Amino acid sequence: MARNPLISIVSAGLSKFGKREGLSGRELFVEAALEAFGKCPKLDPKKDIQALIMGQMSESFEHQGHTAPTLSDWAGLLPAPAIRIETACASSAAAIRYGIMAILSGIYDVVMVGGVEKMTNRATAEVTEYLAMAADFPFEQWNGVTFPGLFALMATAHMHRYGTTEEHMASVAVKNHHNATLNPKAHFQREVNVEKVMESRVIAWPLKLYDCSLVSDGAGCAILTRPELARRYTDAPVQVIGSGHGSDTIGLYEREDYTTLKSVKIAAKEAYGKAGITAREVDIAEVHDCFTIAELIAYEDLGFCGKGEGGKLIEAGETKLDGNIPVNMSGGLKAKGHPIGATGLAQLYEVFLQLTDQAEGRQVDGCNIGLTENVGGSGASCFVHIYEEG
Amino acid sequence: MARNPLISIVSAGLSKFGKREGLSGRELFVEAALEAFGKCPKLDPKKDIQALIMGQMSESFEHQGHTAPTLSDWAGLLPAPAIRIETACASSAAAIRYGIMAILSGIYDVVMVGGVEKMTNRATAEVTEYLAMAADFPFEQWNGVTFPGLFALMATAHMHRYGTTEEHMASVAVKNHHNATLNPKAHFQREVNVEKVMESRVIAWPLKLYDCSLVSDGAGCAILTRPELARRYTDAPVQVIGSGHGSDTIGLYEREDYTTLKSVKIAAKEAYGKAGITAREVDIAEVHDCFTIAELIAYEDLGFCGKGEGGKLIEAGETKLDGNIPVNMSGGLKAKGHPIGATGLAQLYEVFLQLTDQAEGRQVDGCNIGLTENVGGSGASCFVHIYEEG
Repeated sequence: MARNPLISIVSAGLSKFGKREGLSGRELFVEAALEAFGKCPKLDPKKDIQALIMGQMSESFEHQGHTAPTLSDWAGLLPAPAIRIETACASSAAAIRYGIMAILSGIYDVVMVGGVEKMTNRATAEVTEYLAMAADFPFEQWNGVTFPGLFALMATAHMHRYGTTEEHMASVAVKNHHNATLNPKAHFQREVNVEKVMESRVIAWPLKLYDCSLVSDGAGCAILTRPELARRYTDAPVQVIGSGHGSDTIGLYEREDYTTLKSVKIAAKEAYGKAGITAREVDIAEVHDCFTIAELIAYEDLGFCGKGEGGKLIEAGETKLDGNIPVNMSGGLKAKGHPIGATGLAQLYEVFLQLTDQAEGRQVDGCNIGLTENVGGSGASCFVHIYEEG
Repeated sequence: MARNPLISIVSAGLSKFGKREGLSGRELFVEAALEAFGKCPKLDPKKDIQALIMGQMSESFEHQGHTAPTLSDWAGLLPAPAIRIETACASSAAAIRYGIMAILSGIYDVVMVGGVEKMTNRATAEVTEYLAMAADFPFEQWNGVTFPGLFALMATAHMHRYGTTEEHMASVAVKNHHNATLNPKAHFQREVNVEKVMESRVIAWPLKLYDCSLVSDGAGCAILTRPELARRYTDAPVQVIGSGHGSDTIGLYEREDYTTLKSVKIAAKEAYGKAGITAREVDIAEVHDCFTIAELIAYEDLGFCGKGEGGKLIEAGETKLDGNIPVNMSGGLKAKGHPIGATGLAQLYEVFLQLTDQAEGRQVDGCNIGLTENVGGSGASCFVHIYEEG
């Protein structure tokens, strides 16, 4: 039994990520839900699940808001009441945190948390516009800045101050693409090398095409309960031992430092404190690599290395599958795909598989403690969760 | 001290509702927040408020998602972490419920809950389209049905089965318009009579222009804490003694009965049960009169009268300010206005004023227990809260 668990995860499911033509967001959610139900035969979904808390970034992709009761209906959970949480790209990590609170509050004993986004039905210009809504309208969007541009500002600041190179960033893409070849649910299952990344076209310098995460369709879910009830449903629960949430200004223009995300540091501090551990005790992590620079900054803000040493950490191979602290075993947003509202849940799913020895070709041996870090927008929101096996 | 309170409300604020030209949603939220802070001088917002949980229906009106950290920033609360909840027109009642859970969970001691919507910057056709996103895309929106049409289906079914008349519905408008003349924050402060409602142009028969709520700008907020801490901040808290949440199918086409909202009955049952009271003990209520028929159905589903007797209840004048169970003292969505994401908070605000004897010209004497009922879409979501003075 893990140290002082907040709640237990008794099952989890994830749709295949990718261009899922002909399937709507709600259908992808059913795909994820059926996996979670199938893995947990002792649970009667309609009888046992008392609420659904789900994340979705945007109503615009499918011209569909009020998504939460729709998913509760399609997954066969009604009358289980449902809400949608939106914190941009961190929407489903927010759902995890408020799912935990819903149980700790004593109101519910068993809740499903979920996340979904359908994106590939839209043209690239539409996708860019809808995503940009997570940046500040009057002071960012209105001036034409979109997310590659915002993260490019962080990248150039990091390069200038710490000597981080384009090759360091490319190495993140190489690692995560490799990991994705071992993940059958990943969107993009092809290796890349540093040269290929460096030669790809510039999106917002220094970020090139292969520094950017993918536009994907996908959905995920997990079933949470109180630790004392978990063994009713499974012999191999995963415990959530830490949860943290930080917010910061939506606009980069209001921040003092572009080389760090304050919301990540706040969320990590809360999560580590709750879990009673330090970064050194984390065995594996899924972090928010929406752009390659974001993974390097995450290493630093989460304490996997010192400030400015993210480039060195990837260079030393420490975050590869066989490194000291494997990061983005799933392929990350970079290569597994980034269906926005599903990403937080997909991170949980990977850690759930790893801690229960179900990650097959990409399994990290002997891992006991996992961490997920999910960032909204350019860092106005961040959620960190820490998990322990059994 | 109230019976078994869940949490305490120590302050609340509401912006003026209406066509607030030149002001953005975040600025309206600051207007509401400053009122709440001003009413509670013992609270240090930046130091004491640990999280913000807010509701907003749509990112489309202002081309702005990721609203929650933006509001935390503009209201001076950062680094207080923030989330947005969306359950269509019930978004900020959802924020209230999850604000309660956040406190009950032990994670936070003091949270702000809020809601906002900026709507009047858009043309009528855009407003109709954005609101329709809360209906089912493939099976409702796609067929051209919008909300007046959906509620017209409920109205005709109710007329057919129970003999409810257009005049009954018009009487709801007359009452709520009268109440709004006594509310300086109401959008529309003009009396109407039954003839005027009956002569107004048909929107979706039997619903006419004056049967429909208003498109408005507005924001609201409240500050919640645990009952044992409330007296640190105020001598006159209001206690939340019951909370309930129900969900139903998003599509009307999936329901057996158009004359009742199942989600309301589920939410009411949970809230009454938690409070340990019955409908008879409710002194005042703010209910979701997005269309006049919705108020009549709410009387029935909340147990203020028997099934099918909503028309008789309004006819008897029982829900007027001087009636047995005054409803929508504020003017309701009908005349105070319906800035979607702010409506749940505006209902709380009115009950807060009434139970603390601050409702001036529309004060109901001797009220001790108040109820709010906030519905999302055509009833796929509903939240009921019950409040008691001191």
